[in-house]
Amino acid sequence: MKPRKVKIVGTGTYLPKQLITSDEMDRRLGVPAGWTHLKSDVKTRHFILNETASEMGASAAYAALEDAGLAFADIDCIVCTSGTMQQPIPCTAVLIQKAMQQENSGVPCFDVNATCLSFVTGLDLISYLIDAGRYRRVLLVATEIASEGINFNDKESAALFGDGAAAVVIEQTAPAESSAILHAAMETYSSGSEFSEIRAGGSAQHAKHHTTDNEEDYLFRMNGHAIFRMASKLLPPFVEQLLLKSQLQISDISLVIPHQGSAMAMKLLRKRLNISEEQLLYTTPIFGNTIAASIPIGLHEAIRHKQMSRGDRILLLGTSAGLSLGGVIFEY
Amino acid sequence: MKPRKVKIVGTGTYLPKQLITSDEMDRRLGVPAGWTHLKSDVKTRHFILNETASEMGASAAYAALEDAGLAFADIDCIVCTSGTMQQPIPCTAVLIQKAMQQENSGVPCFDVNATCLSFVTGLDLISYLIDAGRYRRVLLVATEIASEGINFNDKESAALFGDGAAAVVIEQTAPAESSAILHAAMETYSSGSEFSEIRAGGSAQHAKHHTTDNEEDYLFRMNGHAIFRMASKLLPPFVEQLLLKSQLQISDISLVIPHQGSAMAMKLLRKRLNISEEQLLYTTPIFGNTIAASIPIGLHEAIRHKQMSRGDRILLLGTSAGLSLGGVIFEY
Repeated sequence: MKPRKVKIVGTGTYLPKQLITSDEMDRRLGVPAGWTHLKSDVKTRHFILNETASEMGASAAYAALEDAGLAFADIDCIVCTSGTMQQPIPCTAVLIQKAMQQENSGVPCFDVNATCLSFVTGLDLISYLIDAGRYRRVLLVATEIASEGINFNDKESAALFGDGAAAVVIEQTAPAESSAILHAAMETYSSGSEFSEIRAGGSAQHAKHHTTDNEEDYLFRMNGHAIFRMASKLLPPFVEQLLLKSQLQISDISLVIPHQGSAMAMKLLRKRLNISEEQLLYTTPIFGNTIAASIPIGLHEAIRHKQMSRGDRILLLGTSAGLSLGGVIFEY
Repeated sequence: MKPRKVKIVGTGTYLPKQLITSDEMDRRLGVPAGWTHLKSDVKTRHFILNETASEMGASAAYAALEDAGLAFADIDCIVCTSGTMQQPIPCTAVLIQKAMQQENSGVPCFDVNATCLSFVTGLDLISYLIDAGRYRRVLLVATEIASEGINFNDKESAALFGDGAAAVVIEQTAPAESSAILHAAMETYSSGSEFSEIRAGGSAQHAKHHTTDNEEDYLFRMNGHAIFRMASKLLPPFVEQLLLKSQLQISDISLVIPHQGSAMAMKLLRKRLNISEEQLLYTTPIFGNTIAASIPIGLHEAIRHKQMSRGDRILLLGTSAGLSLGGVIFEY
């Protein structure tokens, strides 16, 4: 795979104003004090009060533009890379353009969805368009409201999630610079499609069929143990191939920014992939699992806290409903 | 824009077994006999009986593979390019892989959504990955169940839609051949975002808030006249630029395969863009508006009926909720 000359030039996030502590989650879930923290290692997560996904995405997007020293006029395309949508029609990227008050700009807007891997997939896809010169600069926005789809009766999964948004501006790397996407890969095994799902709310069981009796069909459910077993088997050879094709060792990777699926998933990565504690970004305790926003939020935090520098080799890695595996190795 | 060496090597469709005539629609809408046909020019459309979007997509996908003389093992990626989803999690491409009974294949699956322009946007995006050699062959699948989201109280829009699926296999063009994507463009003006929408069913108004009183929020609504006015203004300069950048005249285009938004939209294209009746594929009377499936269904029909041949220059063109405009000019 030829490296794609793509540079991350700005990042931004938006976290909803309402902070939910693990104590508060214990009360909402009706569990003994300390249960949420013990089970999930999530100390705090943000839940929306009255924000919409597009407002969150627009705030993150303007923060990323400011970080890059750019204006909206410098942007050629907006891609929403989220696992949740604001409304069925139009796509969320359109609503982000509107929330940015750029509704007459003509800037193309569309969504890429691979659930928790939406950002990784979007970055991988769009890197080819940037490399080929189709778009000069693209705004990738992951904006997730997990809290609306949580099933509070399924306490283990309910404890994991948080809301949040992140945006990343990418552009073509200048000839003298070395920022690049070195390798990327994705694999999907739909034998795991039922391990993590929201079964109703699309065409198979439309929202109009919702009643108080079937409400759980419209909410998130997961089989954490089945995902863990499947990921344990599939992730090691997947990452081995990623590194092999990048001609890198895991020790060459300065930082692994994983999807913050759960504390258990993070332990799996460290143990099975020989990733050291210092190499692995771990934001689960403060944000929870923010679906596709979790990797770009991690990226933003790592840059902000100087955990990565220009020239570093970074691995974005995760699993998502599917079950899918996705990874991108890039030189920042 | 450098042409991308991409060749369409197979197409397939699946139309649900249930055929709904305009007489039947008159009864369902409670309108006088002849009203549906007169208003929409849709004589027949297909509605699902018990098919799912992934089953429809899988049937279309296998038909496209057969048309191409290929097997599933020849495919490196499945992209669902639909405006509707089967269920919120996982994405529809995963469910198509499963419905194809290829659940242990590892073939990557993700969705691209730009409402009615999803196929055009997906083809445009993936063409860069094919051209760069990332994937050898990709299956693009648009599978749409419009009928579940129709508001039968909004008779004018209800009369327009049909269900259907189409799949297209693309691969890198052989060195000696000339098939290529010559130019593609997209523009989005979210000032028109409310002209065509389903407001509820995402995070802004979750399915769990559905009651019999607010049911219409969860169904499709459109302001056809506002879309028509906006598209009348925006489409002519958009197509002019598409042609200019391809160094082509409209007379060089053998066939325009438009999104079959409505009979009115088709008239607009002919009048404002000087497209002759022979140049414009018109399938609205037999399929209605099948959302993002309408363009690849048109492509399939045009190939099947020998309305296009290798070497022909073809324009895929449409508008979608957004309001977005999209077009791809390719040499077949």
